[in-house]
Amino acid sequence: MDIGVYDDYEDYEEVEFIAKSDKRYIVLVIYDIVDNKKRNRMVKCLERYGVRVQKSAFEAYLSKKKYEQLMKDASRIIDKETDSLRIYLLANNTSVRSWGIGDKHIEDVIIF
Amino acid sequence: MDIGVYDDYEDYEEVEFIAKSDKRYIVLVIYDIVDNKKRNRMVKCLERYGVRVQKSAFEAYLSKKKYEQLMKDASRIIDKETDSLRIYLLANNTSVRSWGIGDKHIEDVIIF
Repeated sequence: MDIGVYDDYEDYEEVEFIAKSDKRYIVLVIYDIVDNKKRNRMVKCLERYGVRVQKSAFEAYLSKKKYEQLMKDASRIIDKETDSLRIYLLANNTSVRSWGIGDKHIEDVIIF
Repeated sequence: MDIGVYDDYEDYEEVEFIAKSDKRYIVLVIYDIVDNKKRNRMVKCLERYGVRVQKSAFEAYLSKKKYEQLMKDASRIIDKETDSLRIYLLANNTSVRSWGIGDKHIEDVIIF
């Protein structure tokens, strides 16, 4: 049923990230990787730390140690000449709105 | 010159986002879009608001009005059955580390 021009826009989920502890980090990892093998290796790497929210985006909720390990592990996988890796350390009260299909979300796994 | 096992890891840029004004929003948009035409339309849409930091990731620094308009414009482009759109409203003091190639960064365009 078409209920108006704004119905699609209004059909979103909203989540606010609030870390339960000062010692935990909320992290978003996004990447562009040209080579299929390296890209698969990145997926396998990031699955150990967090949850996949898009094809090349993962969210994770980590201790400082794990956060640092993630940066080391992930940065070694990419080809610095052709690929890009960006790791956002999200501050408390960051929020996200999402439309369309969703993979598992971090909030399904971690209770903040 | 190979100076050790950590040299790749250490070779990153780090940026901290700090909005100059309470009235401005720092936004990260990421998407997975199956259809090429829709994906191109998304790129054209987001280029009007911010800067491309990866193939399917844009950062923008916006007024509330523009932020709301961006959400409306972008959410209408995707196919809700097959695609995903996530718009992060980044809190102050969010930081990002990046490795590898970089497109233009938001900090090249906006002086915070």
